[in-house]
Amino acid sequence: MPYTYNRLNKDDAALLMVDHQAGLLSLVRDFSPDDFKNNVLALADIGKFFDLPTILTTSFEDGPNGPMVPELKEAFPHAPYIARPGQINAWDNEAFRNAVAETGRRQLVIAGVVTEVCVAFPALSALEAGYEVFVVTDASGTFNQTTRDAAWNRMSQAGVQLMTWFGAGCELHRDWRNDVEGFGGLLAQHLPAYANLIQSYSQHQA
Amino acid sequence: MPYTYNRLNKDDAALLMVDHQAGLLSLVRDFSPDDFKNNVLALADIGKFFDLPTILTTSFEDGPNGPMVPELKEAFPHAPYIARPGQINAWDNEAFRNAVAETGRRQLVIAGVVTEVCVAFPALSALEAGYEVFVVTDASGTFNQTTRDAAWNRMSQAGVQLMTWFGAGCELHRDWRNDVEGFGGLLAQHLPAYANLIQSYSQHQA
Amino acid sequence: MPYTYNRLNKDDAALLMVDHQAGLLSLVRDFSPDDFKNNVLALADIGKFFDLPTILTTSFEDGPNGPMVPELKEAFPHAPYIARPGQINAWDNEAFRNAVAETGRRQLVIAGVVTEVCVAFPALSALEAGYEVFVVTDASGTFNQTTRDAAWNRMSQAGVQLMTWFGAGCELHRDWRNDVEGFGGLLAQHLPAYANLIQSYSQHQA
Amino acid sequence: MPYTYNRLNKDDAALLMVDHQAGLLSLVRDFSPDDFKNNVLALADIGKFFDLPTILTTSFEDGPNGPMVPELKEAFPHAPYIARPGQINAWDNEAFRNAVAETGRRQLVIAGVVTEVCVAFPALSALEAGYEVFVVTDASGTFNQTTRDAAWNRMSQAGVQLMTWFGAGCELHRDWRNDVEGFGGLLAQHLPAYANLIQSYSQHQA
Amino acid sequence: MPYTYNRLNKDDAALLMVDHQAGLLSLVRDFSPDDFKNNVLALADIGKFFDLPTILTTSFEDGPNGPMVPELKEAFPHAPYIARPGQINAWDNEAFRNAVAETGRRQLVIAGVVTEVCVAFPALSALEAGYEVFVVTDASGTFNQTTRDAAWNRMSQAGVQLMTWFGAGCELHRDWRNDVEGFGGLLAQHLPAYANLIQSYSQHQA
Amino acid sequence: MPYTYNRLNKDDAALLMVDHQAGLLSLVRDFSPDDFKNNVLALADIGKFFDLPTILTTSFEDGPNGPMVPELKEAFPHAPYIARPGQINAWDNEAFRNAVAETGRRQLVIAGVVTEVCVAFPALSALEAGYEVFVVTDASGTFNQTTRDAAWNRMSQAGVQLMTWFGAGCELHRDWRNDVEGFGGLLAQHLPAYANLIQSYSQHQA
Amino acid sequence: MPYTYNRLNKDDAALLMVDHQAGLLSLVRDFSPDDFKNNVLALADIGKFFDLPTILTTSFEDGPNGPMVPELKEAFPHAPYIARPGQINAWDNEAFRNAVAETGRRQLVIAGVVTEVCVAFPALSALEAGYEVFVVTDASGTFNQTTRDAAWNRMSQAGVQLMTWFGAGCELHRDWRNDVEGFGGLLAQHLPAYANLIQSYSQHQA
Amino acid sequence: MPYTYNRLNKDDAALLMVDHQAGLLSLVRDFSPDDFKNNVLALADIGKFFDLPTILTTSFEDGPNGPMVPELKEAFPHAPYIARPGQINAWDNEAFRNAVAETGRRQLVIAGVVTEVCVAFPALSALEAGYEVFVVTDASGTFNQTTRDAAWNRMSQAGVQLMTWFGAGCELHRDWRNDVEGFGGLLAQHLPAYANLIQSYSQHQA
Repeated sequence: MPYTYNRLNKDDAALLMVDHQAGLLSLVRDFSPDDFKNNVLALADIGKFFDLPTILTTSFEDGPNGPMVPELKEAFPHAPYIARPGQINAWDNEAFRNAVAETGRRQLVIAGVVTEVCVAFPALSALEAGYEVFVVTDASGTFNQTTRDAAWNRMSQAGVQLMTWFGAGCELHRDWRNDVEGFGGLLAQHLPAYANLIQSYSQHQA
Repeated sequence: MPYTYNRLNKDDAALLMVDHQAGLLSLVRDFSPDDFKNNVLALADIGKFFDLPTILTTSFEDGPNGPMVPELKEAFPHAPYIARPGQINAWDNEAFRNAVAETGRRQLVIAGVVTEVCVAFPALSALEAGYEVFVVTDASGTFNQTTRDAAWNRMSQAGVQLMTWFGAGCELHRDWRNDVEGFGGLLAQHLPAYANLIQSYSQHQA
Repeated sequence: MPYTYNRLNKDDAALLMVDHQAGLLSLVRDFSPDDFKNNVLALADIGKFFDLPTILTTSFEDGPNGPMVPELKEAFPHAPYIARPGQINAWDNEAFRNAVAETGRRQLVIAGVVTEVCVAFPALSALEAGYEVFVVTDASGTFNQTTRDAAWNRMSQAGVQLMTWFGAGCELHRDWRNDVEGFGGLLAQHLPAYANLIQSYSQHQA
Repeated sequence: MPYTYNRLNKDDAALLMVDHQAGLLSLVRDFSPDDFKNNVLALADIGKFFDLPTILTTSFEDGPNGPMVPELKEAFPHAPYIARPGQINAWDNEAFRNAVAETGRRQLVIAGVVTEVCVAFPALSALEAGYEVFVVTDASGTFNQTTRDAAWNRMSQAGVQLMTWFGAGCELHRDWRNDVEGFGGLLAQHLPAYANLIQSYSQHQA
Repeated sequence: MPYTYNRLNKDDAALLMVDHQAGLLSLVRDFSPDDFKNNVLALADIGKFFDLPTILTTSFEDGPNGPMVPELKEAFPHAPYIARPGQINAWDNEAFRNAVAETGRRQLVIAGVVTEVCVAFPALSALEAGYEVFVVTDASGTFNQTTRDAAWNRMSQAGVQLMTWFGAGCELHRDWRNDVEGFGGLLAQHLPAYANLIQSYSQHQA
Repeated sequence: MPYTYNRLNKDDAALLMVDHQAGLLSLVRDFSPDDFKNNVLALADIGKFFDLPTILTTSFEDGPNGPMVPELKEAFPHAPYIARPGQINAWDNEAFRNAVAETGRRQLVIAGVVTEVCVAFPALSALEAGYEVFVVTDASGTFNQTTRDAAWNRMSQAGVQLMTWFGAGCELHRDWRNDVEGFGGLLAQHLPAYANLIQSYSQHQA
Repeated sequence: MPYTYNRLNKDDAALLMVDHQAGLLSLVRDFSPDDFKNNVLALADIGKFFDLPTILTTSFEDGPNGPMVPELKEAFPHAPYIARPGQINAWDNEAFRNAVAETGRRQLVIAGVVTEVCVAFPALSALEAGYEVFVVTDASGTFNQTTRDAAWNRMSQAGVQLMTWFGAGCELHRDWRNDVEGFGGLLAQHLPAYANLIQSYSQHQA
Repeated sequence: MPYTYNRLNKDDAALLMVDHQAGLLSLVRDFSPDDFKNNVLALADIGKFFDLPTILTTSFEDGPNGPMVPELKEAFPHAPYIARPGQINAWDNEAFRNAVAETGRRQLVIAGVVTEVCVAFPALSALEAGYEVFVVTDASGTFNQTTRDAAWNRMSQAGVQLMTWFGAGCELHRDWRNDVEGFGGLLAQHLPAYANLIQSYSQHQA
């Protein structure tokens, strides 16, 4: 059967950040804390850079799960923010579904904590609802490598596309010439090794 | 083709615990003993919490394979308990198949030791028989990472959904409000990192 | 679509041991030498135990690749032995294909060195020829984990079933009662941890 | 120079549990949460089993570091409990030093979170003060394997003896006959693999 | 559905080397530098050995990304060399697409840096355009194992075949007798373990 | 022999940052880039927080090694900055030795790239010159884990104390009450997991 | 201080095999079962090959710990066999100490299960008693890598020399010419990779 | 006690390459073949660059161990070459000891295969004979990480200094200005990541 490559498109994509809460983050152990923090903030910067409609949601944020990480709230001060009263699958929350629908977008970029629940459940629900679903794997964390592997497998077999923040950013950007400075700056901030290249280059130029 | 997300449903799921026997457990080396014990008991608690019809089965329990771990027997004192006289694939045992059929459930949650045999064989048989099959990967153990990878691949390619005990529990629970105390307690008992969050929260509240 | 579970059947399976040669074995680094030797000999014992028609083949055995490991030759003194004059894919060798055809079997159990070539090539060819193909992953070795992962993925996506020697043995045996002593003895010889169970059991019985 | 093997002696050893607090535990990533919880509780059980004078201490327990894990408080209801007002090195706290001195013991068994600070600092101070110091490595946790390695090296080079809870327990017990039931029960509770041996053995005996 | 094994065919394959640039290579951390250098040069030697039409391309080579590694330029002095002015996906560059089309080949062998972008994007585009796509996984590198896993999964699920340089070389060669000396020499240069076999063999022969 | 615990003392310690240059950093592969960047900047913040006399040095910064990372230059605008004309061991540079001597400190905290050369050489020289030497292992990087292990061993056997940035910071700080806000803020910035604790705590307090 | 290299000497060494019992072996997880079985039997063969006085001992062999592995009993039918009634440290058993003394040897080669107890305790005791102690690390097993690391560190810091079965065998043998056939045969049996070299060599010779 | 830093000195060092033979190299599994080949040849280039007196030796080179790797023979055509007739410890061979003595050097740089035997034995003997011994760990290989760890520990505790080829080269070179081109070229050839830096630098300069 012929394959169609529906790329992530900045005019058709929305970003869903699910349950990146201070308490829940302490459960994430398939990334080092530094790596994971960087990945989540890089994805947030991508959402802002491409002006993707973005939706934030939390689960029980007044309890042990803790508040959404403040950097995300600050990054998207005007985004719909749905503090779910109890639904584990964000898609079960009508306000969340409506917020997604109101974006008018058909490509959903999802990341969250923990991967096999807060990410996988809405990802599969969105797939069923006819959306294209792209999970940003390195901005989604869970208890260990085994639970991650199982979660990735389940989502992938259902039709979810597994991405990374760097891959998603590049697929959205398409061409460096659309904004060399801006996109390069974003990368430099979140890829120390790339920042090093830029510094060496700049010095050699000078 | 359109995707349908048939979630685990506490009214349509049954739990099959296959060959968690004292001797066979000594063969499991893709988890630390502490982690594996915790995962198996967490899954048992999930079965009890959601009142899932549960079936226990063993293979040659009077020989070197040893007795079923006592915690499982105690957890499900009224569950059908099928000590198989020789069938390696539990599905080849008529009493087991009948016990499954009598649950009236169409979603089978399976875990066992070892993954590529005691789990994979009945999982594939159940799939063929038309059931939806969910394997709880972290309550299923085997000799090493390589044999696990092969087993997961075979099952997944056939249509089995790879889950974890935490994912299965959350998919069954749907909404924290169905029983915050109960489900939170279950998690606290089996997720030390979550218990820590609750303790810090409780102290701060006090 | 409905799934059919065509189990490995001792009356319909043949075993193909491809290029387990002394020189080539020094290239295998995705297993420890002890583990790999044990896995290969365990698979050979399974072939003998179930009287599977078995075919041995080598590539350039008079050169640096070296001779087939002597234990395999001794295990199958009457098996067709095809020393290929140059074909990398054993399936390109007419004598090999004929030997396979003459077994009259439709299920091919394949293992060899190295996985992405000596195993994958005939596996994909056999698949195309209409056979059911089961690759014994832990009796097949290659340069490192990365090349293994790629090889498994390619074969699996094409329709090959990834097995282990233990899984294959159990699927062929079906029921311990078919020969408790024999099969138990085979396991004891190749699973030290299982041998330990038997020893403890025997002593306790005595 | 002649070597003297001063074994851990239940009449000369004291146990120091340093900063096992709910918040700080979320920083520990050189053990899985299940493993670490088990190790800490096993060490506590050893302290109780051998009636070791035990001292509990915390750092800033009313703030983000959180309360001492409740199981430890319950295990040692009458132990000196020093909630340090600010000293990072417990040894800098006079009450703590006094509590240690009042035990009259010269062998200090220390565990805590995090290894390179809360364990290493008092360990080195105690060494300087002339105590024999035994660090229970697997009941002490830190950020990652690298920081652990550095901490172990620094302590070991200074003269600290690196132990495990199992090694410490066995060195204190000396002879099974001192209390077979008691010590075996302790092991069974914290070594699932040993519990399996006991269960198989018991069944075979029955 | 019947499976067709379209092997890599030296008369129908073209080689695409994407963005192996000095700066970008410093980002590659899913291989050791020695391993990766060897893999890339081995693939280049395969392209030359089988006279595969080869296309080189770079991204922003005058900036921080740096120049294409000189060994590749030297290996293919007459190959189309497309220094892309900004397109991230090489397939978005018309000159690149035309160069591919002009080869007249339908099988594309692709490697590059980084895997989830410079390799995956043109691979998926080529798939959509009706080509058969073979990605040489070990001559393609990226930031870490996690991003690699996600990239492999996305490509594989779309229909890309995951290969290695050794597998690709062997599938193209088909039969050692086509050129024993030449192919053996290529292997000896890039597989030190194979070179050792040849040296031992040669000495024993002498 | 009696052991003396000479703690790091903010009034007797100086900080030496050796060859953290943009080019050389691309060689570091025993840490993820995010982790390493964080560790280096955390150590710099510790130097500033405790007002440690600090010395920066580079090797051949106008060539491929590249410029010192700009964050370090900015952090210590008034620090002696020695761009070495060729000496590999910074201690061989008279200006460097003099700068160290002029600090009047006897405890040297050293970090750099790569560990077995730029760190180990001056560390061993300083030891010989009678200084106490503390190497910050996690702000020092090298090619891989093997070279790191060898370097740590050589330094440790000579008498260097292996530290981490967190351990060094805590040993210098001694007591939280010296500046709770300041030190807590430093930790929050470089320990995402600790920042999460603070955020949860703050919300619960509010 | 001058260093003296007291090599293992077949006329001054004795072999102590401590607690290699069927039950206890199921606790060993720092080696694969195949590797560990091979290492233990290789060490036994070395003991026999060099006619080392050998002492076997077990702990509670009638209980869950299980019987000594039969291969060891068979290998040393005339060796002193001390089934300890309760002493955890074999050195605490007078019969054991006497058996050691009666060998008249001053170099003790020790291996056992588990490393931090059954090996470390008698090793440290023997050191105190003035023996030279060589622990065969790869024929000694324990719960995991962490406990192993701690055990090795404690023993090594006390003065134990850490060896491997291969190193011990070679140090005892001194010169191949003492018995090329015999020693080569021993290696071939326990080093599959070496056996492959011999097979290739033999074929090339033929 | 005061520490003296006796650096490797090109006028006082000799290089000993022990048993890098084609057959034995197939036993090395603590490095990838590409990495190990590169390390060994890098060390050889260091020996040549600094004109170190160099001694080559082999063990049983006419048998399965195979010939010395040809690159080493070619690198040192005039070096003493001692094909030992049987001594496992090269130091037991009088010609070898004499060759070492004739160099007149007191610092011995040793590498070989396998680490715990062919390296450790002569290293310890040389130490006893009063030499300073520097083992190049990454040009010395063995069966696995465990045997390596034991070998490093034994040598290090005896007084051997653990080095790497890069560390040894830099310690010998002292100052880049002694020969920037030469030493830079050597590094570029054996450190692909450093070669990339040079290429980017050169292009930017151009």
